[in-house]
Amino acid sequence: MGADILIRNVRPFGGEPTDLCIRDGRFARGQSEAALEIDGKGQIALPGLVEAHTHLDKTLVGMDWFENRVGPTRNDRILADRQAKRVLGIDARRQSTRQIMQTLAFGVLHIRSHVDVDTEIGIANIEGVVETRNALRDLVDVQIVAFPQSGMLVRDGTLALMQEALKAGADIVGGIDPATIERDPVRHLDAIFALADRYGKPIDIHLHEVGELGAFCIELILERTRALSLQGRVMVSHAYCLGMLEPPRQRLLLEALAAEKVAVMTVGSPSAPALPLRLMRQSGLVVASGSDGIQGTWEPWGNGDMLERAKYLAQRNGLTNDADLEETARVCTLGGAEGIGLADYGLSEGCYGDLVLVPARTLAEAVALTPQKRTVVRRGRVLVRDGVPAGDLPRVE
Amino acid sequence: MGADILIRNVRPFGGEPTDLCIRDGRFARGQSEAALEIDGKGQIALPGLVEAHTHLDKTLVGMDWFENRVGPTRNDRILADRQAKRVLGIDARRQSTRQIMQTLAFGVLHIRSHVDVDTEIGIANIEGVVETRNALRDLVDVQIVAFPQSGMLVRDGTLALMQEALKAGADIVGGIDPATIERDPVRHLDAIFALADRYGKPIDIHLHEVGELGAFCIELILERTRALSLQGRVMVSHAYCLGMLEPPRQRLLLEALAAEKVAVMTVGSPSAPALPLRLMRQSGLVVASGSDGIQGTWEPWGNGDMLERAKYLAQRNGLTNDADLEETARVCTLGGAEGIGLADYGLSEGCYGDLVLVPARTLAEAVALTPQKRTVVRRGRVLVRDGVPAGDLPRVE
Repeated sequence: MGADILIRNVRPFGGEPTDLCIRDGRFARGQSEAALEIDGKGQIALPGLVEAHTHLDKTLVGMDWFENRVGPTRNDRILADRQAKRVLGIDARRQSTRQIMQTLAFGVLHIRSHVDVDTEIGIANIEGVVETRNALRDLVDVQIVAFPQSGMLVRDGTLALMQEALKAGADIVGGIDPATIERDPVRHLDAIFALADRYGKPIDIHLHEVGELGAFCIELILERTRALSLQGRVMVSHAYCLGMLEPPRQRLLLEALAAEKVAVMTVGSPSAPALPLRLMRQSGLVVASGSDGIQGTWEPWGNGDMLERAKYLAQRNGLTNDADLEETARVCTLGGAEGIGLADYGLSEGCYGDLVLVPARTLAEAVALTPQKRTVVRRGRVLVRDGVPAGDLPRVE
Repeated sequence: MGADILIRNVRPFGGEPTDLCIRDGRFARGQSEAALEIDGKGQIALPGLVEAHTHLDKTLVGMDWFENRVGPTRNDRILADRQAKRVLGIDARRQSTRQIMQTLAFGVLHIRSHVDVDTEIGIANIEGVVETRNALRDLVDVQIVAFPQSGMLVRDGTLALMQEALKAGADIVGGIDPATIERDPVRHLDAIFALADRYGKPIDIHLHEVGELGAFCIELILERTRALSLQGRVMVSHAYCLGMLEPPRQRLLLEALAAEKVAVMTVGSPSAPALPLRLMRQSGLVVASGSDGIQGTWEPWGNGDMLERAKYLAQRNGLTNDADLEETARVCTLGGAEGIGLADYGLSEGCYGDLVLVPARTLAEAVALTPQKRTVVRRGRVLVRDGVPAGDLPRVE
């Protein structure tokens, strides 16, 4: 925890200039003599950016270039992914550290990561990311989803590994395409909701199922959320189907998701169906966003900057108005925080003293141009100053 | 023109390492004693990046932030655009200079820019960009399209201004949505093809018309291209309709475009229909790409980096294989060059001695991660070295 700190002349979410005071690691009233003062120079202040969906254990950042010759289907990609872990020797602890330290410079202070659990690697990746989380706990919050990437019911032994993962430190029960991968939506969802109920954990489900198949799976998820009173603890990731339905059907489903407080995570992928961002927010839905995998076997690009992600969300939805860009910035901060269940998040008095300063004239400009020389503060400690990491940060191998 | 120069150890398009020699402004055989030697350090060598579609006269780079509250239709945007030119005082000469100098650092050495012609500004923007072209002709090639952004037939006097624009230095006859804006596809296309025929100029048509309406307009364009023997001199920009047709219809239209050597320009916009990039290239179509407007009233983002554009093309098409990323890099170099009709373009002996070096391990990595510290050479003169502009470049106001 840093000393008391006073940050003068910043504009929260692009609003009026103000000073922000952090005392004992939390935003506090007043401007009592602080050990450190920072001139914010009128920069935009945001709370720590929220990465609500990535795969820390599988990034290839810092490794040899992976020549991607993977086939076009999701199963081709899962196979290539599993093979790569073995052949390339992807070290989950090292790789998760590299990604976290890279995205810290952007101001990403909260990360929910899906971490693979399968019958080849067992829970090794979970253990690796748990190690990283412990090592970096003063810099960033990491939530770990036990993620059955290769299937759970279709691969004997995976369900038992999911339980091991939860005992080893995973915070959340992950699920995967209940129909197209698991071949049995009811049994898959029953199984993961039973795990969540038994271990008292939230749920986060990768749902790529398209059209009415996806909508049906969402109905099944809603039924189980209601039955187990898991409102506010379930997230559906990707949920492409929400962008593929006739408007009346779409609207009813969005309202049902909002009613059960089931959050939706979208990355705004340029090549997947676009989710109706504005309509989702208007329906009261909690919308979070994430980078998904960066620089891995699935996709060769990505830097993990959640402000750039806000731009992607706007671009995919054809949103160019300033007000809309401000909304996508909120998705990547407040929306993400609510979606992954962060407490005491924000720039208000009493919240944790975490923030990122972005050198931009307006919040919309911050989203559109994603300036890089940011200042990042966590619990009152300056981690990055005008784009330069503090000298006392751990070195990345 | 620079002195003779030898660039050692570079990999053309990511291939085998070689040395490149530039003599008298062109690539030459041999390694005779050069005045300057550069260690390429195994970097990727590409010919100058080709920006085949932008709006140099309308970027707001370096100006006050424009708060975008523009309505959602194309007509809303055209109206806001015309108003902004008046209210914000967008100086076409200054703004085109700013964009060109910004994109020079990325290695963009050839630019086709649409430049507005309308009854409010007349040909002032054409004159401004012509001035810029003359001032910067030792740094970059600029092609100017006389572009009736606000409509031509629907605004009396515009057709006469188009002729003035061609006399004032515009190189290409521009067209705009013949049906949805001009309200008369046959008369619009007849008019611009007549201009092209009379002044001996190529044609470049903004075609946003969707579905079968767009396909019909393309048929009209093909008929006129054939009738006037304008093969190789017509480009259709955007052409969203090509991504919206049933496969057999789509294939026939692509083949017809290839047969008449009508090029297609796509920016890979995340919010517009995706053009079938792979199929287009397989059909023998010339495919070029561009940034469209950057940081203007239409869209708040964009940096004009045509290597990043290659990434956008891949992302919009869901292409993640290395071979596909190499293809999108070719679209933004060779495809663009063919599309806008550049002579002596490429890295072969006899071609102009223009190139950009990208610090990446493979061409796919160059596209996926768009490294910024590039080296840019034009006609043997080093304009940018490892991301640092040469000291003798003109200063941008």
